[in-house]
Formats: sequence, C-alpha cells, structure tokens
Amino acid sequence: MALKGGIKTENRIQNPNISVDCVLFGFDGENLKVLLIRQKSIGNENGAKLALPGDLVFDNEDLDKAAVRVLEELTSLDNISMYQFHTFGNVNRVKEVKDQEWLRTFRAKPEARVITVGYYSLVNLNEYQPKPASFADKTIWHDAFDVPHLAFDHNEIFKKAFQTLKAEFNTKSRGFELLPEKFTLTQLQTLYEMILNKKLDKRNFRKKFKKEGKLIALDEKQAGVLHKPAQLYKYSK
Amino acid sequence: MALKGGIKTENRIQNPNISVDCVLFGFDGENLKVLLIRQKSIGNENGAKLALPGDLVFDNEDLDKAAVRVLEELTSLDNISMYQFHTFGNVNRVKEVKDQEWLRTFRAKPEARVITVGYYSLVNLNEYQPKPASFADKTIWHDAFDVPHLAFDHNEIFKKAFQTLKAEFNTKSRGFELLPEKFTLTQLQTLYEMILNKKLDKRNFRKKFKKEGKLIALDEKQAGVLHKPAQLYKYSK
Repeated sequence: MALKGGIKTENRIQNPNISVDCVLFGFDGENLKVLLIRQKSIGNENGAKLALPGDLVFDNEDLDKAAVRVLEELTSLDNISMYQFHTFGNVNRVKEVKDQEWLRTFRAKPEARVITVGYYSLVNLNEYQPKPASFADKTIWHDAFDVPHLAFDHNEIFKKAFQTLKAEFNTKSRGFELLPEKFTLTQLQTLYEMILNKKLDKRNFRKKFKKEGKLIALDEKQAGVLHKPAQLYKYSK
Repeated sequence: MALKGGIKTENRIQNPNISVDCVLFGFDGENLKVLLIRQKSIGNENGAKLALPGDLVFDNEDLDKAAVRVLEELTSLDNISMYQFHTFGNVNRVKEVKDQEWLRTFRAKPEARVITVGYYSLVNLNEYQPKPASFADKTIWHDAFDVPHLAFDHNEIFKKAFQTLKAEFNTKSRGFELLPEKFTLTQLQTLYEMILNKKLDKRNFRKKFKKEGKLIALDEKQAGVLHKPAQLYKYSK
C-alpha cells in the first residue's frame, strides 16, 4: 500500500496490521444491550456475519481517536467517549475461512496479521439512534446476555469487555453514565442487577450507597407515575 | 519486508508496526525497583538511552508470548509471566530525532508507525539476576520512584504500569508475588507501604488483613534474627 500524493488521501491510509473494535453497551432502563452490526453481504450469505463495529486504524491516527471515528463511520453515533480495555493479538484471529472471504472484499491486504485494540463504553440507549453506514448493513441493539456467534474473535472481545465493565462498574463509577441525570434508587438498583446479573437485597444496597456518599438526594420526586412518586437522586462528583 | 523461504527465517520476521514493552518491577524487601536496559551505543553517545525492555513482535507470534520472549532476549530473565495492561498508539511515539537515529541502526523500517502493547509483572528481585543481551548494553534495577528520562514514550508507559500495579495490587493480589513464600507481617506492611508510597497504621493494617482471610499463620517463627523472632505467614489461595 504505497503512500499517495495528496494530503487528503494520505490521511486515510489504513495500517494493515492494526485495528480497533468497539463494544458499546446500552441500557434502556430495564435491559442491557450491546451494539452489533451486520456486515454487508458479499453476494454469499454465509460471508456476512454479525460483528462488533471495528476497522483498521489510519496510519496517522491516534488509537483513541480511531475508536471514536470507526464507531461513527459504521453506526453514525458520534462523540461517544470510549475506554480502552484490552488488545487482542492471537496470530489466527482473522484467519477463519468465512472471515477471510469477507476480508478479501473489504481489505487491501486481507491476509495480513491484524491485532486489534478493544474499546468499550456504555450509554443510555434511549438517547442514541444508530444508523448503519460504510460496510455495515444493519445496526442492532442486541441482548448483552445472549450474544450470538460473531465474526473473527469478536465473541472473545465482547466477553472481555463485559468482564471489564463489571470490574470497572464500581471502581470507576462507570454505571452512572447509564442513568438519567435524576434517578430513583429503584432505577439504580435495576441497573446494578442487570450488569451484575443477580438480585440484590434492597436494604443492603441502599445502605451501601448512602454510606459511600456517591448520591445526592434532591428536593424532587418522580412525576407522572401511577404509584407513589419516589425520591430522586443525582450522582455526586 | 518480503517473506523468505525457510521456516526458521519466516518465524523470525518482525511485524514493523507492532511491539511489546515490558515493565518489570522488583522488590528487594525494602525498595521497589524497575528493570531498565541501556541501549547499545550507535557510535554516538547521545543516541543510546535508558529504556524499558521492548521490541517488535514476530508476525506469527501471539502478543503474550512476545512479551515473555522479548524480556528474555534483552535481559536473560526467562519464564516470567507478564500481564498486559495498556496499548500505546500515539502517532509520534517513536518519532523523536534521537530515537529515530537509534532505530535506523536496529530496525528494518525505522520510520514505520509502531503501536506498543505494554506488559508488566513484579518479582522478588533477589531471585533474579538479569544479564544484558541483544541490543541491550546493560541491565539496571532502577529506583521505581525516581525513573530518569527514557527512550521513546517509555516514561508514559512506566507511569501507566505503576498506576496499574497500584490498582491491581489489592484487587488481583499481585503483591504477594513479591514476598518470600513465608513472610512476617512487617515484611508485608513494608511492601504495601513501598507500592502505595505512604506509611500505614500497623494496627489497622493487620486488622484488615486478618479480616480478609488472605493469610495463613504458620507454626513457625523467623530464624536467625537478633530481635524477638516474628510469626511467619503464608498467602492463602
């Protein structure tokens, strides 16, 4: 892949050996989802798979910027901060026959060894409407607890991202990004139960949070609900 | 860099875009050190710098294996398990003039964009005697709290490794790898104070550890000490 003359072209030269993959979690208030794309068909239905949004980085592009750019190019979601979590470099990670078939259509050097840097983030799903673009044929918010077979080593990448989410959920307070600005303790507990995939004791859960001082009780209650309106909180710091 | 015929040669083909860098911490019972190499001189003293042990990965080599191999090639320390912690991919990370001078001697494609995958580990320094090899002229166990200017972006890599060490020290119980198999609570506290770089209260420290159940009290005491011999412990699980 020789360098071409114009600056514009030069800016878009892909490094054949380095990609990023994005694991975007979305919470809709009740369920935890992950954003997948369906690859564009290459005239052979077997060749197109579900996958994480991912692509090669440009040779003059920082990794963190590449993650944001690739997510936008494939799903039209822009300006989502992504956190790097792990790099995947097994020698045969893109060598499966069907993956190779697909790569021959979309990559200049389909046989090249590619290592991929994994990024994740989590958003309030109701605030984002993905639209497929580039080599994505479709975007899907898929149940994060029942992810189907994905292209390349994307199941492994997803699994590691989910482990990281669970680990960083508390230590880095990532979870609060999924809630509306003002939320009830029931919403907060539902979120924790979803991510950790287990029921939590209401009393202990509330005691723990009040003790940690991460919550600020507001002078406001829920509006427009049929049941007794609950106290609203916001996240401190 | 075309593939050559023989398998042996093929095995050793470096990927020009992907490297690993190793941050090896060593604890000698009192001080925390980090293993540095001095690069071989290229006939111009300014060109040789202190650096972390690091090199390009082979095109058919998994990343985790590359980290272990590169550490051994440069420092003769073998079989040290390394933990991946972060990947560094700023566009200009190897573009400083002096770094470029050095790379022109040691790399086939010195101008290539290189991203590097950082690995770290920690060992009981007394059990390991590094010896320089390959393009390392010297190996140095350097005070981890006073690291000098290093080649490339190695100061940034070191800093991130140290942050990770502190964060994973407790959550992943990495610290116990630095202690002898049987240790005293004073040795354990010294280790914690070194890594966290602060004095800890003896009573609270001991209470916390006993509560966590990570320690097993042995039927043994220290031998060959002038003071009253202390109870020995080992790490549980």
